[in-house]
Amino acid sequence: MTRFFITPEQISGDSAYISGDDAKHCYVLRLRTGERIVLCDGAGYDYICEFECGSKDEARLKVLDKLPSEGEPGTEYCLYCAFPKRDKAEHIIQKATELGVSVIAFFPSEFCVAKYSGTDLQRKTPRWMEIAKEAAQQSARGKIPEVRAFGSFTDAIKSAAAAEFPLFCNEREQSRTLKEAVATHSGYKSVSIVTGSEGGFSVAEAETIKDAGLISVTLGKRILRCETAPLAVLSALTIIDS
Amino acid sequence: MTRFFITPEQISGDSAYISGDDAKHCYVLRLRTGERIVLCDGAGYDYICEFECGSKDEARLKVLDKLPSEGEPGTEYCLYCAFPKRDKAEHIIQKATELGVSVIAFFPSEFCVAKYSGTDLQRKTPRWMEIAKEAAQQSARGKIPEVRAFGSFTDAIKSAAAAEFPLFCNEREQSRTLKEAVATHSGYKSVSIVTGSEGGFSVAEAETIKDAGLISVTLGKRILRCETAPLAVLSALTIIDS
Repeated sequence: MTRFFITPEQISGDSAYISGDDAKHCYVLRLRTGERIVLCDGAGYDYICEFECGSKDEARLKVLDKLPSEGEPGTEYCLYCAFPKRDKAEHIIQKATELGVSVIAFFPSEFCVAKYSGTDLQRKTPRWMEIAKEAAQQSARGKIPEVRAFGSFTDAIKSAAAAEFPLFCNEREQSRTLKEAVATHSGYKSVSIVTGSEGGFSVAEAETIKDAGLISVTLGKRILRCETAPLAVLSALTIIDS
Repeated sequence: MTRFFITPEQISGDSAYISGDDAKHCYVLRLRTGERIVLCDGAGYDYICEFECGSKDEARLKVLDKLPSEGEPGTEYCLYCAFPKRDKAEHIIQKATELGVSVIAFFPSEFCVAKYSGTDLQRKTPRWMEIAKEAAQQSARGKIPEVRAFGSFTDAIKSAAAAEFPLFCNEREQSRTLKEAVATHSGYKSVSIVTGSEGGFSVAEAETIKDAGLISVTLGKRILRCETAPLAVLSALTIIDS
Protein backbone atom coordinates (compact mmCIF):
# COMPACT_ATOMS: atom_id res chain seq x y z
CA MET A 1 0.00 0.00 0.00
CA THR A 2 1.13 3.55 -0.71
CA ARG A 3 2.49 5.16 2.41
CA PHE A 4 2.87 8.76 3.55
CA PHE A 5 4.34 10.39 6.62
CA ILE A 6 2.10 12.95 8.28
CA THR A 7 2.13 15.33 11.23
CA PRO A 8 -0.37 14.95 14.15
CA GLU A 9 -2.66 17.80 13.01
CA GLN A 10 -3.39 15.95 9.75
CA ILE A 11 -5.51 13.43 11.66
CA SER A 12 -8.64 14.27 13.61
CA GLY A 13 -10.82 11.40 14.80
CA ASP A 14 -11.59 9.23 11.79
CA SER A 15 -10.76 11.99 9.26
CA ALA A 16 -7.36 12.76 7.76
CA TYR A 17 -5.95 14.85 4.96
CA ILE A 18 -2.73 15.07 3.01
CA SER A 19 -1.46 18.08 1.09
CA GLY A 20 1.48 19.40 -0.91
CA ASP A 21 3.65 16.90 -2.82
CA ASP A 22 1.92 13.96 -1.14
CA ALA A 23 -1.49 15.12 -2.41
CA LYS A 24 0.02 15.54 -5.88
CA HIS A 25 1.44 12.02 -5.61
CA CYS A 26 -2.06 10.65 -4.80
CA TYR A 27 -3.45 12.61 -7.73
CA VAL A 28 -0.86 11.11 -10.08
CA LEU A 29 -1.68 7.63 -8.77
CA ARG A 30 -5.34 8.31 -9.74
CA LEU A 31 -6.60 6.82 -6.48
CA ARG A 32 -10.29 5.95 -6.50
CA THR A 33 -12.74 6.33 -3.63
CA GLY A 34 -12.36 3.37 -1.29
CA GLU A 35 -8.76 2.57 -2.21
CA ARG A 36 -6.47 2.11 0.77
CA ILE A 37 -3.32 3.93 1.74
CA VAL A 38 -1.31 4.10 4.95
CA LEU A 39 -0.48 7.25 6.88
CA CYS A 40 2.37 7.01 9.36
CA ASP A 41 2.76 9.51 12.19
CA GLY A 42 6.53 8.90 12.41
CA ALA A 43 6.08 8.24 16.12
CA GLY A 44 5.18 4.58 16.15
CA TYR A 45 1.72 4.35 14.54
CA ASP A 46 0.33 3.54 11.10
CA TYR A 47 -3.20 4.64 10.14
CA ILE A 48 -4.93 2.48 7.56
CA CYS A 49 -7.05 4.89 5.51
CA GLU A 50 -9.55 4.87 2.69
CA PHE A 51 -9.30 7.50 -0.02
CA GLU A 52 -12.42 9.69 -0.18
CA CYS A 53 -11.73 12.50 -2.64
CA GLY A 54 -8.87 14.73 -3.68
CA SER A 55 -7.35 17.37 -5.90
CA LYS A 56 -3.75 18.18 -6.82
CA ASP A 57 -3.51 20.15 -3.58
CA GLU A 58 -5.32 18.07 -1.01
CA ALA A 59 -6.72 14.58 -0.49
CA ARG A 60 -9.36 13.63 2.11
CA LEU A 61 -9.20 10.27 3.79
CA LYS A 62 -11.22 8.17 6.21
CA VAL A 63 -9.27 6.47 8.99
CA LEU A 64 -10.21 2.79 9.30
CA ASP A 65 -7.63 1.48 11.74
CA LYS A 66 -4.62 2.48 13.85
CA LEU A 67 -1.82 -0.06 14.22
CA PRO A 68 1.72 0.04 15.63
CA SER A 69 4.31 0.63 12.88
CA GLU A 70 6.16 -2.64 12.30
CA GLY A 71 9.13 -1.32 10.32
CA GLU A 72 11.27 -0.10 13.21
CA PRO A 73 14.10 -2.16 14.68
CA GLY A 74 14.29 -2.43 18.46
CA THR A 75 17.81 -0.99 18.44
CA GLU A 76 18.86 2.52 17.46
CA TYR A 77 21.55 2.42 14.76
CA CYS A 78 23.48 5.62 14.03
CA LEU A 79 25.94 5.95 11.17
CA TYR A 80 28.80 8.42 11.46
CA CYS A 81 30.47 8.72 8.04
CA ALA A 82 33.32 11.07 7.18
CA PHE A 83 32.11 13.21 4.23
CA PRO A 84 32.26 11.11 1.05
CA LYS A 85 32.64 12.42 -2.50
CA ARG A 86 29.88 13.16 -5.01
CA ASP A 87 26.54 11.38 -4.66
CA LYS A 88 27.77 8.76 -2.22
CA ALA A 89 26.14 10.56 0.72
CA GLU A 90 22.79 10.19 -1.06
CA HIS A 91 23.46 6.51 -1.69
CA ILE A 92 24.28 5.93 1.99
CA ILE A 93 21.14 7.79 3.12
CA GLN A 94 18.82 5.87 0.81
CA LYS A 95 20.18 2.41 1.58
CA ALA A 96 20.71 2.97 5.33
CA THR A 97 17.10 4.15 5.62
CA GLU A 98 15.84 0.93 4.03
CA LEU A 99 18.04 -1.06 6.40
CA GLY A 100 16.59 0.61 9.51
CA VAL A 101 19.00 3.38 10.52
CA SER A 102 17.91 6.07 13.02
CA VAL A 103 20.53 8.76 12.38
CA ILE A 104 22.93 9.33 9.49
CA ALA A 105 25.59 11.83 10.46
CA PHE A 106 28.39 13.17 8.25
CA PHE A 107 31.51 14.86 9.57
CA PRO A 108 34.82 16.28 8.34
CA SER A 109 38.14 14.47 8.64
CA GLU A 110 41.69 15.19 7.51
CA PHE A 111 41.70 13.10 4.32
CA CYS A 112 38.17 13.95 3.12
CA VAL A 113 38.33 14.94 -0.54
CA ALA A 114 34.84 16.42 -0.27
CA LYS A 115 34.99 19.70 1.64
CA TYR A 116 31.58 21.10 2.48
CA SER A 117 31.19 24.70 3.56
CA GLY A 118 28.26 25.83 5.70
CA THR A 119 26.52 27.06 2.54
CA ASP A 120 27.04 23.73 0.76
CA LEU A 121 25.47 21.93 3.68
CA GLN A 122 22.52 24.32 3.84
CA ARG A 123 21.92 23.56 0.17
CA LYS A 124 22.39 19.80 0.51
CA THR A 125 20.54 19.06 3.74
CA PRO A 126 16.96 19.52 2.39
CA ARG A 127 17.80 17.18 -0.51
CA TRP A 128 19.27 14.62 1.93
CA MET A 129 16.18 14.81 4.16
CA GLU A 130 13.94 14.32 1.13
CA ILE A 131 15.88 11.17 0.16
CA ALA A 132 15.49 9.82 3.70
CA LYS A 133 11.74 10.57 3.64
CA GLU A 134 11.20 8.88 0.26
CA ALA A 135 13.23 5.82 1.25
CA ALA A 136 11.37 5.60 4.59
CA GLN A 137 8.01 5.69 2.78
CA GLN A 138 9.05 3.12 0.21
CA SER A 139 10.56 0.71 2.75
CA ALA A 140 7.62 0.95 5.22
CA ARG A 141 9.62 2.52 8.02
CA GLY A 142 7.76 3.80 11.07
CA LYS A 143 9.83 6.99 11.18
CA ILE A 144 12.06 9.14 8.99
CA PRO A 145 15.73 8.90 9.98
CA GLU A 146 17.48 12.08 10.99
CA VAL A 147 20.23 13.33 8.66
CA ARG A 148 22.79 15.63 10.18
CA ALA A 149 26.17 17.16 9.41
CA PHE A 150 28.74 17.91 12.10
CA GLY A 151 31.02 20.89 11.68
CA SER A 152 33.82 19.27 13.65
CA PHE A 153 35.47 15.85 13.82
CA THR A 154 35.69 16.05 17.62
CA ASP A 155 31.97 16.75 18.09
CA ALA A 156 31.04 13.84 15.83
CA ILE A 157 33.27 11.37 17.66
CA LYS A 158 32.01 12.58 21.04
CA SER A 159 28.44 12.01 19.89
CA ALA A 160 29.29 8.54 18.46
CA ALA A 161 31.01 7.54 21.71
CA ALA A 162 27.78 8.07 23.66
CA ALA A 163 26.11 4.96 22.16
CA GLU A 164 25.92 1.78 24.23
CA PHE A 165 27.79 -0.15 21.52
CA PRO A 166 30.06 2.32 19.69
CA LEU A 167 31.92 0.76 16.75
CA PHE A 168 34.87 2.12 14.82
CA CYS A 169 35.51 0.42 11.46
CA ASN A 170 39.28 0.72 11.45
CA GLU A 171 41.34 -0.29 8.42
CA ARG A 172 44.42 -0.61 10.67
CA GLU A 173 42.75 -2.98 13.13
CA GLN A 174 44.50 -6.34 12.88
CA SER A 175 42.69 -8.54 15.33
CA ARG A 176 39.15 -7.77 16.55
CA THR A 177 36.49 -8.68 14.00
CA LEU A 178 32.97 -7.27 14.04
CA LYS A 179 31.73 -10.76 14.87
CA GLU A 180 33.98 -10.89 17.94
CA ALA A 181 32.88 -7.43 19.08
CA VAL A 182 29.23 -8.47 18.78
CA ALA A 183 29.89 -11.72 20.68
CA THR A 184 31.14 -9.81 23.71
CA HIS A 185 28.30 -7.27 23.76
CA SER A 186 24.62 -7.94 24.21
CA GLY A 187 21.45 -6.21 25.21
CA TYR A 188 22.58 -2.93 23.69
CA LYS A 189 19.84 -0.53 22.59
CA SER A 190 22.00 1.96 20.69
CA VAL A 191 24.82 1.37 18.24
CA SER A 192 27.06 3.87 16.49
CA ILE A 193 29.12 2.91 13.43
CA VAL A 194 32.02 5.21 12.52
CA THR A 195 33.49 4.87 9.02
CA GLY A 196 36.03 6.90 7.04
CA SER A 197 35.92 8.68 3.70
CA GLU A 198 37.71 7.52 0.52
CA GLY A 199 41.05 8.53 2.07
CA GLY A 200 40.45 6.84 5.42
CA PHE A 201 41.48 8.34 8.76
CA SER A 202 44.91 9.65 9.73
CA VAL A 203 46.83 7.75 12.42
CA ALA A 204 46.15 10.60 14.87
CA GLU A 205 42.42 10.57 14.09
CA ALA A 206 42.25 6.80 14.55
CA GLU A 207 43.90 7.16 17.96
CA THR A 208 41.45 9.92 18.93
CA ILE A 209 38.52 7.71 17.98
CA LYS A 210 39.83 4.79 20.03
CA ASP A 211 40.68 7.05 22.98
CA ALA A 212 37.08 8.31 22.94
CA GLY A 213 36.04 4.75 23.81
CA LEU A 214 34.95 3.39 20.45
CA ILE A 215 35.53 -0.30 19.79
CA SER A 216 37.97 -0.73 16.91
CA VAL A 217 36.99 -3.56 14.53
CA THR A 218 38.29 -4.90 11.22
CA LEU A 219 35.86 -5.70 8.41
CA GLY A 220 38.26 -8.29 6.99
CA LYS A 221 40.95 -8.42 4.33
CA ARG A 222 38.91 -6.97 1.50
CA ILE A 223 38.89 -3.23 0.99
CA LEU A 224 35.33 -1.91 1.11
CA ARG A 225 34.48 1.41 -0.52
CA CYS A 226 33.51 4.18 1.86
CA GLU A 227 29.85 3.88 0.90
CA THR A 228 29.85 0.07 1.17
CA ALA A 229 31.38 -0.30 4.66
CA PRO A 230 28.67 1.43 6.75
CA LEU A 231 25.89 -0.36 4.87
CA ALA A 232 27.59 -3.76 5.25
CA VAL A 233 27.92 -3.30 9.02
CA LEU A 234 24.35 -2.03 9.34
CA SER A 235 23.06 -5.01 7.30
CA ALA A 236 24.96 -7.46 9.45
CA LEU A 237 23.86 -5.93 12.77
CA THR A 238 20.18 -5.56 11.88
CA ILE A 239 20.14 -9.23 10.91
CA ILE A 240 22.24 -10.44 13.88
CA ASP A 241 20.05 -8.40 16.28
CA SER A 242 16.78 -9.49 14.64
CA MET B 1 49.17 -0.93 -3.59
CA THR B 2 47.81 -0.92 -7.14
CA ARG B 3 46.60 -4.36 -8.10
CA PHE B 4 46.09 -6.12 -11.42
CA PHE B 5 44.75 -9.52 -12.39
CA ILE B 6 46.97 -11.47 -14.79
CA THR B 7 47.03 -14.78 -16.63
CA PRO B 8 49.73 -17.41 -15.91
CA GLU B 9 51.78 -16.66 -19.06
CA GLN B 10 52.39 -13.09 -17.85
CA ILE B 11 54.77 -14.41 -15.19
CA SER B 12 57.99 -16.29 -15.89
CA GLY B 13 60.40 -16.82 -13.00
CA ASP B 14 61.07 -13.43 -11.46
CA SER B 15 59.89 -11.47 -14.52
CA ALA B 16 56.37 -10.34 -15.30
CA TYR B 17 54.65 -8.04 -17.75
CA ILE B 18 51.29 -6.35 -18.07
CA SER B 19 49.74 -5.08 -21.28
CA GLY B 20 46.57 -3.51 -22.73
CA ASP B 21 44.43 -1.35 -20.45
CA ASP B 22 46.43 -2.37 -17.38
CA ALA B 23 49.68 -1.10 -18.97
CA LYS B 24 47.88 2.13 -19.87
CA HIS B 25 46.69 2.40 -16.26
CA CYS B 26 50.32 2.05 -15.02
CA TYR B 27 51.39 4.67 -17.55
CA VAL B 28 48.73 7.10 -16.30
CA LEU B 29 49.82 6.46 -12.72
CA ARG B 30 53.37 7.51 -13.79
CA LEU B 31 54.92 4.63 -11.86
CA ARG B 32 58.64 5.02 -11.28
CA THR B 33 61.28 2.28 -11.32
CA GLY B 34 61.23 0.49 -7.97
CA GLU B 35 57.62 1.30 -7.09
CA ARG B 36 55.58 -1.69 -5.98
CA ILE B 37 52.41 -3.14 -7.41
CA VAL B 38 50.61 -6.44 -6.87
CA LEU B 39 49.73 -8.93 -9.58
CA CYS B 40 47.09 -11.50 -8.74
CA ASP B 41 46.78 -14.76 -10.68
CA GLY B 42 43.09 -15.10 -9.79
CA ALA B 43 43.83 -18.61 -8.54
CA GLY B 44 44.94 -17.94 -4.99
CA TYR B 45 48.25 -16.09 -5.27
CA ASP B 46 49.46 -12.49 -5.15
CA TYR B 47 52.83 -11.52 -6.64
CA ILE B 48 54.51 -8.50 -5.09
CA CYS B 49 56.34 -6.78 -7.95
CA GLU B 50 58.63 -3.86 -8.57
CA PHE B 51 58.04 -1.67 -11.61
CA GLU B 52 61.04 -1.70 -13.98
CA CYS B 53 60.00 0.18 -17.12
CA GLY B 54 56.96 0.65 -19.30
CA SER B 55 55.16 2.28 -22.18
CA LYS B 56 51.46 2.83 -22.90
CA ASP B 57 51.33 -0.71 -24.27
CA GLU B 58 53.42 -2.78 -21.90
CA ALA B 59 55.06 -2.58 -18.47
CA ARG B 60 57.92 -4.82 -17.27
CA LEU B 61 58.04 -5.88 -13.65
CA LYS B 62 60.36 -7.81 -11.35
CA VAL B 63 58.70 -10.34 -9.06
CA LEU B 64 59.85 -9.96 -5.45
CA ASP B 65 57.54 -12.28 -3.58
CA LYS B 66 54.65 -14.71 -3.99
CA LEU B 67 52.01 -14.79 -1.24
CA PRO B 68 48.59 -16.41 -0.86
CA SER B 69 45.77 -13.97 -1.72
CA GLU B 70 44.07 -12.94 1.50
CA GLY B 71 40.91 -11.37 0.08
CA GLU B 72 38.90 -14.56 -0.46
CA PRO B 73 36.29 -15.79 2.03
CA GLY B 74 36.38 -19.49 2.96
CA THR B 75 32.79 -19.92 1.77
CA GLU B 76 31.47 -19.64 -1.78
CA TYR B 77 28.62 -17.11 -1.98
CA CYS B 78 26.47 -17.09 -5.12
CA LEU B 79 23.78 -14.49 -5.78
CA TYR B 80 20.82 -15.36 -7.96
CA CYS B 81 18.91 -12.16 -8.74
CA ALA B 82 15.88 -11.89 -11.01
CA PHE B 83 16.76 -9.31 -13.70
CA PRO B 84 16.50 -5.81 -12.18
CA LYS B 85 15.82 -2.56 -14.07
CA ARG B 86 18.36 -0.08 -15.43
CA ASP B 87 21.80 0.08 -13.84
CA LYS B 88 20.89 -1.92 -10.74
CA ALA B 89 22.62 -5.03 -12.11
CA GLU B 90 25.85 -3.02 -12.30
CA HIS B 91 25.36 -1.80 -8.74
CA ILE B 92 24.82 -5.37 -7.47
CA ILE B 93 27.92 -6.62 -9.33
CA GLN B 94 30.18 -3.89 -7.98
CA LYS B 95 29.08 -4.09 -4.36
CA ALA B 96 28.78 -7.90 -4.21
CA THR B 97 32.32 -8.20 -5.58
CA GLU B 98 33.65 -6.00 -2.77
CA LEU B 99 31.73 -8.10 -0.26
CA GLY B 100 33.32 -11.35 -1.44
CA VAL B 101 30.80 -12.98 -3.82
CA SER B 102 31.91 -15.85 -6.11
CA VAL B 103 29.11 -15.86 -8.67
CA ILE B 104 26.49 -13.25 -9.58
CA ALA B 105 23.75 -14.80 -11.70
CA PHE B 106 20.75 -13.04 -13.20
CA PHE B 107 17.64 -14.82 -14.42
CA PRO B 108 14.17 -14.03 -15.83
CA SER B 109 10.98 -14.19 -13.77
CA GLU B 110 7.33 -13.42 -14.42
CA PHE B 111 7.22 -9.91 -12.95
CA CYS B 112 10.61 -8.68 -14.22
CA VAL B 113 10.16 -5.27 -15.81
CA ALA B 114 13.57 -5.60 -17.45
CA LYS B 115 13.37 -8.07 -20.32
CA TYR B 116 16.74 -8.95 -21.78
CA SER B 117 16.99 -10.65 -25.17
CA GLY B 118 20.01 -12.79 -26.07
CA THR B 119 21.44 -9.81 -27.96
CA ASP B 120 21.00 -7.47 -24.97
CA LEU B 121 22.85 -9.94 -22.80
CA GLN B 122 25.68 -10.37 -25.31
CA ARG B 123 26.07 -6.61 -25.25
CA LYS B 124 25.84 -6.27 -21.48
CA THR B 125 27.94 -9.21 -20.32
CA PRO B 126 31.38 -7.76 -21.25
CA ARG B 127 30.48 -4.55 -19.37
CA TRP B 128 29.31 -6.56 -16.34
CA MET B 129 32.54 -8.60 -16.37
CA GLU B 130 34.59 -5.42 -16.55
CA ILE B 131 32.78 -4.00 -13.50
CA ALA B 132 33.49 -7.23 -11.59
CA LYS B 133 37.16 -7.07 -12.58
CA GLU B 134 37.56 -3.42 -11.55
CA ALA B 135 35.79 -3.98 -8.23
CA ALA B 136 37.87 -7.10 -7.56
CA GLN B 137 41.10 -5.15 -8.19
CA GLN B 138 40.02 -2.24 -6.05
CA SER B 139 38.86 -4.38 -3.14
CA ALA B 140 41.92 -6.69 -3.14
CA ARG B 141 40.01 -9.82 -4.04
CA GLY B 142 42.00 -12.95 -4.91
CA LYS B 143 39.78 -13.73 -7.89
CA ILE B 144 37.30 -12.09 -10.22
CA PRO B 145 33.72 -13.24 -9.57
CA GLU B 146 31.87 -14.90 -12.38
CA VAL B 147 28.90 -12.99 -13.84
CA ARG B 148 26.32 -15.05 -15.67
CA ALA B 149 22.81 -14.76 -17.07
CA PHE B 150 20.40 -17.68 -17.16
CA GLY B 151 17.93 -17.93 -20.03
CA SER B 152 15.36 -19.73 -17.89
CA PHE B 153 13.94 -19.38 -14.40
CA THR B 154 13.95 -23.17 -13.92
CA ASP B 155 17.64 -23.54 -14.77
CA ALA B 156 18.60 -20.74 -12.37
CA ILE B 157 16.63 -22.24 -9.46
CA LYS B 158 18.04 -25.72 -10.18
CA SER B 159 21.55 -24.27 -10.04
CA ALA B 160 20.81 -22.30 -6.83
CA ALA B 161 19.36 -25.40 -5.16
CA ALA B 162 22.69 -27.22 -5.56
CA ALA B 163 24.43 -25.09 -2.88
CA GLU B 164 24.94 -26.55 0.60
CA PHE B 165 22.99 -23.64 2.14
CA PRO B 166 20.47 -22.42 -0.45
CA LEU B 167 18.51 -19.36 0.70
CA PHE B 168 15.36 -17.87 -0.78
CA CYS B 169 14.59 -14.31 0.34
CA ASN B 170 10.82 -14.57 0.31
CA GLU B 171 8.62 -11.53 0.90
CA ARG B 172 5.71 -13.86 1.82
CA GLU B 173 7.69 -15.74 4.48
CA GLN B 174 6.12 -15.01 7.85
CA SER B 175 8.21 -16.92 10.34
CA ARG B 176 11.76 -18.05 9.53
CA THR B 177 14.30 -15.22 9.79
CA LEU B 178 17.74 -15.32 8.17
CA LYS B 179 19.22 -15.45 11.67
CA GLU B 180 17.19 -18.57 12.49
CA ALA B 181 18.17 -20.24 9.21
CA VAL B 182 21.85 -19.56 9.93
CA ALA B 183 21.49 -20.88 13.50
CA THR B 184 20.34 -24.27 12.23
CA HIS B 185 23.03 -24.60 9.56
CA SER B 186 26.76 -24.72 10.05
CA GLY B 187 29.90 -25.85 8.30
CA TYR B 188 28.49 -24.98 4.88
CA LYS B 189 31.02 -24.20 2.17
CA SER B 190 28.60 -22.90 -0.47
CA VAL B 191 25.64 -20.54 -0.12
CA SER B 192 23.15 -19.39 -2.73
CA ILE B 193 20.95 -16.33 -2.19
CA VAL B 194 17.87 -16.01 -4.40
CA THR B 195 16.17 -12.59 -4.59
CA GLY B 196 13.42 -11.16 -6.75
CA SER B 197 13.18 -8.19 -9.09
CA GLU B 198 11.25 -4.96 -8.39
CA GLY B 199 7.98 -6.84 -8.88
CA GLY B 200 8.89 -9.80 -6.67
CA PHE B 201 8.01 -13.40 -7.50
CA SER B 202 4.58 -14.78 -8.38
CA VAL B 203 2.97 -17.20 -5.90
CA ALA B 204 3.65 -20.07 -8.32
CA GLU B 205 7.31 -19.10 -8.68
CA ALA B 206 7.74 -18.88 -4.91
CA GLU B 207 6.29 -22.39 -4.55
CA THR B 208 8.63 -23.69 -7.26
CA ILE B 209 11.63 -22.20 -5.46
CA LYS B 210 10.63 -23.77 -2.14
CA ASP B 211 9.85 -27.11 -3.80
CA ALA B 212 13.35 -27.08 -5.28
CA GLY B 213 14.67 -27.26 -1.71
CA LEU B 214 15.60 -23.64 -1.03
CA ILE B 215 15.18 -22.37 2.52
CA SER B 216 12.57 -19.60 2.59
CA VAL B 217 13.54 -16.69 4.88
CA THR B 218 12.12 -13.28 5.72
CA LEU B 219 14.39 -10.24 5.86
CA GLY B 220 12.06 -8.51 8.31
CA LYS B 221 9.20 -6.04 8.14
CA ARG B 222 10.95 -3.39 6.11
CA ILE B 223 10.72 -3.56 2.33
CA LEU B 224 14.20 -3.73 0.82
CA ARG B 225 14.75 -2.67 -2.77
CA CYS B 226 15.71 -5.44 -5.16
CA GLU B 227 19.33 -4.24 -5.28
CA THR B 228 19.55 -3.83 -1.49
CA ALA B 229 18.28 -7.26 -0.40
CA PRO B 230 21.02 -9.48 -1.95
CA LEU B 231 23.77 -7.15 -0.68
CA ALA B 232 22.29 -7.02 2.84
CA VAL B 233 22.19 -10.82 3.06
CA LEU B 234 25.69 -11.16 1.63
CA SER B 235 27.02 -8.57 4.11
CA ALA B 236 25.42 -10.35 7.02
CA LEU B 237 26.64 -13.80 6.04
CA THR B 238 30.23 -12.78 5.26
CA ILE B 239 30.40 -11.18 8.70
CA ILE B 240 28.58 -14.01 10.54
CA ASP B 241 30.79 -16.62 8.80
CA SER B 242 34.00 -14.62 9.37
